Amino acid sequence: MTYKKITGTFIDEITVDIPSQNWGPQEWEREFDTFAEAGLDTVVLIRAGCGERLACPSKAVSDRVATLPVYVDLVRLFLDLSEARGIGFYLGLYDSNHFWYRHDWRTEVEINRAFIAEMWERYGDSPAFRGWYLPHETTDSSLRILDINTTLAEQAKSSTGLPVLISPYYMGRKDIAGAQPVRTPEEHRRIWEEIFGRYQGLVDACAFQDATTDLLQLEEYTKATVEAARGTGIAIWSNAETFDRDMPIRFPPTDWRKLAHRLDTVQPYVDKIITFEFPHFMSPNSMWPSAQALYRRYQDLIADRTR
Amino acid sequence: MTYKKITGTFIDEITVDIPSQNWGPQEWEREFDTFAEAGLDTVVLIRAGCGERLACPSKAVSDRVATLPVYVDLVRLFLDLSEARGIGFYLGLYDSNHFWYRHDWRTEVEINRAFIAEMWERYGDSPAFRGWYLPHETTDSSLRILDINTTLAEQAKSSTGLPVLISPYYMGRKDIAGAQPVRTPEEHRRIWEEIFGRYQGLVDACAFQDATTDLLQLEEYTKATVEAARGTGIAIWSNAETFDRDMPIRFPPTDWRKLAHRLDTVQPYVDKIITFEFPHFMSPNSMWPSAQALYRRYQDLIADRTR
Amino acid sequence: MTYKKITGTFIDEITVDIPSQNWGPQEWEREFDTFAEAGLDTVVLIRAGCGERLACPSKAVSDRVATLPVYVDLVRLFLDLSEARGIGFYLGLYDSNHFWYRHDWRTEVEINRAFIAEMWERYGDSPAFRGWYLPHETTDSSLRILDINTTLAEQAKSSTGLPVLISPYYMGRKDIAGAQPVRTPEEHRRIWEEIFGRYQGLVDACAFQDATTDLLQLEEYTKATVEAARGTGIAIWSNAETFDRDMPIRFPPTDWRKLAHRLDTVQPYVDKIITFEFPHFMSPNSMWPSAQALYRRYQDLIADRTR
Repeated sequence: MTYKKITGTFIDEITVDIPSQNWGPQEWEREFDTFAEAGLDTVVLIRAGCGERLACPSKAVSDRVATLPVYVDLVRLFLDLSEARGIGFYLGLYDSNHFWYRHDWRTEVEINRAFIAEMWERYGDSPAFRGWYLPHETTDSSLRILDINTTLAEQAKSSTGLPVLISPYYMGRKDIAGAQPVRTPEEHRRIWEEIFGRYQGLVDACAFQDATTDLLQLEEYTKATVEAARGTGIAIWSNAETFDRDMPIRFPPTDWRKLAHRLDTVQPYVDKIITFEFPHFMSPNSMWPSAQALYRRYQDLIADRTR
Repeated sequence: MTYKKITGTFIDEITVDIPSQNWGPQEWEREFDTFAEAGLDTVVLIRAGCGERLACPSKAVSDRVATLPVYVDLVRLFLDLSEARGIGFYLGLYDSNHFWYRHDWRTEVEINRAFIAEMWERYGDSPAFRGWYLPHETTDSSLRILDINTTLAEQAKSSTGLPVLISPYYMGRKDIAGAQPVRTPEEHRRIWEEIFGRYQGLVDACAFQDATTDLLQLEEYTKATVEAARGTGIAIWSNAETFDRDMPIRFPPTDWRKLAHRLDTVQPYVDKIITFEFPHFMSPNSMWPSAQALYRRYQDLIADRTR
Repeated sequence: MTYKKITGTFIDEITVDIPSQNWGPQEWEREFDTFAEAGLDTVVLIRAGCGERLACPSKAVSDRVATLPVYVDLVRLFLDLSEARGIGFYLGLYDSNHFWYRHDWRTEVEINRAFIAEMWERYGDSPAFRGWYLPHETTDSSLRILDINTTLAEQAKSSTGLPVLISPYYMGRKDIAGAQPVRTPEEHRRIWEEIFGRYQGLVDACAFQDATTDLLQLEEYTKATVEAARGTGIAIWSNAETFDRDMPIRFPPTDWRKLAHRLDTVQPYVDKIITFEFPHFMSPNSMWPSAQALYRRYQDLIADRTR
């Protein structure tokens, strides 16, 4: 069996909790060249807008929510840079960061239904436009999140024919689970059997965030995920997190040994590995020197695993 | 109307919550060269001392408070570097970080009265010495802060003839206002009418911290500030904050799009724009690569707005 | 009297609260070259393992605790790099980060007794292996910590003949002391007289963390430490902390002026000065540009103090 490399990355522009690197078109061009050199074939813009901020102009959003001026059309920029390098681009939807917290999930859906149509009309002819990403992260089977995600997946899929990706987190670590109890692998399997049942035919791939379990239990959770998805046709990817959550500085590039362990662990179980996210945390162009070093360690690892 | 660039910066040496870059005379010389290239004509040392730490030797402070040894006279260094480049230097007063929190504002004032005299005697013949900065930030009209600031402004002004600058914050965001309610623009106007009334003839310029409102409301607050100052002769500047307060890492360079929006917004209303602060957050010499990139984005913006 | 430079450093690999720089053998070789240039003769690996993570393979630990795969033998790497440069290497023991918090100190000791034997058998013939470091930091005289440390020191010393180092913290600052009252220098002396009494003949050197007191009181605490150790044969070193604890970003390189003050202060009292820690916080190879600048400032200081 060949070793599966990281072949995709999120891009976290319209950042929520990760400081902007303040890249312009030139820096992004350099970064997409690096993507290609690193063997990435997939780029996922995690969200096209959040609250008052937008990654591209959107009448669908601005008609319904007060928004800031848009200084650059990052969606067009990323599509063009992807196209020139044969990279497939997934577009993340809009997250109001408001309505779905306020028990107003229908407004969140309404904005996004208009947003999907607008985006498809404007960018649909780009050959790099290859999928949609649902940014409202699923953690449990409460009605709201399932209703948001199934409605939006259905709309995105039926109107464009493109695949739909999600990237939920495990409840497998105390600091992630918060006030709730840590979910066992068996509970995880049972809950996700139900969720995947609802997502069948709507969601095409699911990449769990691989650092949201205890490191020693990642294999169990990954197996449970594969079992839960069996028969649904949903591909199981892994989201190899290249940042650390458990440091006083939030968030630095992760320790390469943790990443190596997680990459090794998921190899037999997943169809594809992507990361959150290359530009800040593993790029030789990152603002963090330790991200640049992580990239060198990652290359050493790949050289070792594939020789 | 010509586009107003950033023409001044604070320097945060004697840092309180921003890590030192550990620059020596050579690095500061390079930075002042960059100031000149960037078009800065004003440099404001935010405070000449804080608690036990001093930016220059001061008998006025050390006689009254236990202080650490002073390894370098940063005031002299900054005055000389300013003079050689035609930059005007504003000197921030001493903040005990103690007395005025302890309902002992008279001691805070007493130390600073002696400090002003000492500084003027030592540095008053420098042609770069062009003003004073009051570091005790004003937020409301409680007697204490008004008494501190009016007394010190009066002393600084009458004994030296130099102008006096303040840079208060808005109470326009929940995370800034804390336990207090967010202040509306109308409340802001009313409160500052009273404060500016007290400052008339004593304070020459007021640069509100532009990121202490909701981004979408900055224009309203700026207008309210201008109205409040009308007829007082106090010039309204803007303090364009080049750092972000709302990230888990506190504090990184801001996202250039937020800065662009804030700079665009205040253009019609203010007399001058300064920033907190160039060396850490927007300098090509900063320890943060994202600050170096912010400077490039800022230059792109200025090129676009002035072509 | 000649000025005492920093002649040793911790290495914080298997980091707990400091992000990894993701260095590989080449980066570590460069760093050890820098150690030699900087005049370091002592390197202390702060811990050889923590919880599920190990800096080298260890059957002693892995037989008793679930551990992650070990990707590189850092102990061998550091011993070899030390040997080639005439540097003495101190090996920190294993910290389960679990048992001794759970009132199960005997398990912590049992693992470490086997660990000491294993390490000595494997690495004992390296001429660079010069001492042991006890990573369970002592703060008070509660039985548990004294029992752990005296038992382990006894075992390490009697079976290998190498010296034993500790690096406790003062309870001299409110933010360090937490819920407990800040300890006065006199209380510090009294408590450590008892502890040093217990450590006599077992512990060879004690390097208090120099930034865990109020800066203005460091001299008093240092004097009290020297008095407490009098007659015990325990050498008093200083651990010059090159990071800052009191910034919102935890942890950045310290301000050089604070470091200069602390180095100056301890000069008359201590036998040797080491730092926590050079690679992250004072190395010209650090990921922090302000660490690179701290190194330049440190060299300026040394040039000034030794001319």
